[in-house]
Amino acid sequence: MSTIDKVLARIDADLDQSLDRLFDLLKIKSISTDPAYKADCAEAAAWLAKELTSIGIEASVRETKGHPMVVGHRKSGKPGPHVLFYGHYDVQPVDPLELWNQDPFEPTIVTRADGTKMIVARGSADDKGQLMTFVEAARAFIAETGDLPVDVSVLFEGEEESGSPSLRPFLKANHDELACDLALVCDTGMWDAETPAISVMLRGMVGDEIIVKAASRDLHSGMYGGAAQNPNHIIANIIAGLHDEDGRITLPGFYDGVIEVPAEVTAMWEKLGFSAEAFLGEIGLKYPRGEKGRLPLEHIWTRPTCEVNGMWGGYQGAGSKTVIPAEAHAKFTFRLVGDQDPVKVQEAFRAYVRSKVPADCTVDFIAKEGSPALRLDFDHPALKKGEKALTDEWGKTAALVGCGGSIPIVGDFKRMLDMDSLLIGFGLDDDCIHSPNEKYNLTSFHKGIRSWARVLEELAKD
Amino acid sequence: MSTIDKVLARIDADLDQSLDRLFDLLKIKSISTDPAYKADCAEAAAWLAKELTSIGIEASVRETKGHPMVVGHRKSGKPGPHVLFYGHYDVQPVDPLELWNQDPFEPTIVTRADGTKMIVARGSADDKGQLMTFVEAARAFIAETGDLPVDVSVLFEGEEESGSPSLRPFLKANHDELACDLALVCDTGMWDAETPAISVMLRGMVGDEIIVKAASRDLHSGMYGGAAQNPNHIIANIIAGLHDEDGRITLPGFYDGVIEVPAEVTAMWEKLGFSAEAFLGEIGLKYPRGEKGRLPLEHIWTRPTCEVNGMWGGYQGAGSKTVIPAEAHAKFTFRLVGDQDPVKVQEAFRAYVRSKVPADCTVDFIAKEGSPALRLDFDHPALKKGEKALTDEWGKTAALVGCGGSIPIVGDFKRMLDMDSLLIGFGLDDDCIHSPNEKYNLTSFHKGIRSWARVLEELAKD
Repeated sequence: MSTIDKVLARIDADLDQSLDRLFDLLKIKSISTDPAYKADCAEAAAWLAKELTSIGIEASVRETKGHPMVVGHRKSGKPGPHVLFYGHYDVQPVDPLELWNQDPFEPTIVTRADGTKMIVARGSADDKGQLMTFVEAARAFIAETGDLPVDVSVLFEGEEESGSPSLRPFLKANHDELACDLALVCDTGMWDAETPAISVMLRGMVGDEIIVKAASRDLHSGMYGGAAQNPNHIIANIIAGLHDEDGRITLPGFYDGVIEVPAEVTAMWEKLGFSAEAFLGEIGLKYPRGEKGRLPLEHIWTRPTCEVNGMWGGYQGAGSKTVIPAEAHAKFTFRLVGDQDPVKVQEAFRAYVRSKVPADCTVDFIAKEGSPALRLDFDHPALKKGEKALTDEWGKTAALVGCGGSIPIVGDFKRMLDMDSLLIGFGLDDDCIHSPNEKYNLTSFHKGIRSWARVLEELAKD
Repeated sequence: MSTIDKVLARIDADLDQSLDRLFDLLKIKSISTDPAYKADCAEAAAWLAKELTSIGIEASVRETKGHPMVVGHRKSGKPGPHVLFYGHYDVQPVDPLELWNQDPFEPTIVTRADGTKMIVARGSADDKGQLMTFVEAARAFIAETGDLPVDVSVLFEGEEESGSPSLRPFLKANHDELACDLALVCDTGMWDAETPAISVMLRGMVGDEIIVKAASRDLHSGMYGGAAQNPNHIIANIIAGLHDEDGRITLPGFYDGVIEVPAEVTAMWEKLGFSAEAFLGEIGLKYPRGEKGRLPLEHIWTRPTCEVNGMWGGYQGAGSKTVIPAEAHAKFTFRLVGDQDPVKVQEAFRAYVRSKVPADCTVDFIAKEGSPALRLDFDHPALKKGEKALTDEWGKTAALVGCGGSIPIVGDFKRMLDMDSLLIGFGLDDDCIHSPNEKYNLTSFHKGIRSWARVLEELAKD
């Protein structure tokens, strides 16, 4: 029996214990965006540092101004690349709670009608389940062989779901400790439940929140209606004017830096047999909304977007209240592609918003830090090794895909640590990340662990 | 000393006790739109019935499917009109609570820098303070003279702030008991702090709430952004499209039935010296928003409007959440004038909304019952008597004005009981009704009581 076969056999035999450990982590309510869960975030970090150290990756909790980092190392100057594995232990808020079928922090194995076994809990797919695939692979390797095949460092952060304010200062302050030959990042998905994938294009993002204020107090809509400005209408006008009738974004200069994908890449994607009907049908929709004349895969991978993630103003309770509110709010995110500049996009957005606010009203902005889009070279050596490892494990050629969501860490690794990232993950489109009833397939977890064992083995080869 | 002078002297002497009684009523949290306050509404009704009966107006609490009515009578076939006094004991919700300077249900006398004494509490102006001006006037009349100068019935409802669902069934079921010669309604305001007013034009209202649903669950805006419909954008497009660039409402047929006010009425209004700058300046605004080419008094009295009283969709918490929500909501009210038909306006609105909802999304409607606008004849005999009573009390000629807010009861009295309404109230523009820190000037309360005593006296004359 080869070394890798022994490691894989140990992973199979240890699956129930691996699940128990994952459940312990999923029970911790590490919602980073809400200050009420600060202690839970600290608890998740401590749990991970202890876990890593116990398997032979010496790790510690490292304080920041926000939630702490966890850093671990197991290195002895072995040949082959020194890799830095990255994941995040924080999770999204759980609202609307009433749409969950269970407590989001009481992980449960649920068997779907088609027989699929799923780990249901907030963070099961994004990102605790994913990061534990690597931890469990490392555990099996060390337990079986006494070491890892390449030098490994680990970085877990706790602010990925809230803009990662502490990440860049931390990377800067610990540059020499963290700059490795290659990053392994596990925050992405498979092509489908049978086909593994490596993400080679990532959209960037820039966000902004606006608060439009009109009258100095809430007004009676009978007494003032018709004469006084209504911030709900102002916000609606701002949102409505951001897209033209063809679905294009109207901000001047917005499409500067957007790159057309080469025909050969589009051709490869067409072979994947992507069905817009199936993609949208799964979420109860039918017709792609985006820019006219574009493939749905372009809409979500290679075209920039603008979404209103939240808007509110006035009365939201039961019944009616005839009020003109004093203020209204909206949260926006722009997904960026190619060489679009987040700073320029934000400037264009703010100039546009200001132009739509009446002279006797005001607007305030709350910025979210932005990150540009990223691409990985198609002939990167680690990419070939990753493809082989995944193809061996899953029996299907790994797809090279785009990713609609931004993973800012990949840009930071590139720009601050001069380090490329190999993006491998086992999430699926129906995992409901950021939504009620988030889940991670048991197969994703089990074969994900096996996949990382194979990737480590491949990376050690010449 | 004449009878009326004796009654007025008693009112003056009894003012502190009158205030104590008003405070008792203001302390009851009778928020009708929120089911959590059902018992408080019942408590307010019981308090009023007991109070009326104790002063000699035999009254009882009358159950409905919603909050109860209070009905009282003191009649002996006296000459002169038999009047029905109407008021409501329910109040608006108190959110945003953090903007109140005090507990909304702990009434307090606050003295403003200019020396004005104010009764601060939710409901002080709308409508508990106003209805108690009549109760206290009746109390003084009976205590001083042993009777009222005309036959009086009283109707207090508890659902005025939540669409009055029980009112029409109640009027229908009790037609013969409630149909009097004239209604006295006290839900309106003065022209300014020195000038009393009688409202002779009332805008109507029709409301609707919409729920736009897109995907079957909340989506990650990176994974689906650009391809999937976003209900926030759909709602924003609906709101933005309701007005054209001149501030006119775009619904087909919306202006059918809108009546131009005669030039002589506009001329009378111009003499009132209304200042748009002062009107808007008081609430921190400068420029009238409404239809271009119209006076601000037209915007709020004689022109129809559309306001979004509430809208919401997606994440509203601290920080960011990159979500495309499954649904979004908005609450609309239209103010109606002239002969506009609430049913036709609602139909036009719904047809418009449906036309703006994409084919794979849905919209649900929650209707609010509507009421058309109303006018009172300028030569109505009771109007002349009301004018004299108010002019005697305040020393300034009473202004005949429009009213931007709707008072559906007046339409119901007209259509169901064939009864005109004399609308006299002592509210002021800066009373902050429906808003934090609602107040009622002590002068409004005191001279309001005196005014009703004089009105009752005048109505008894030939």
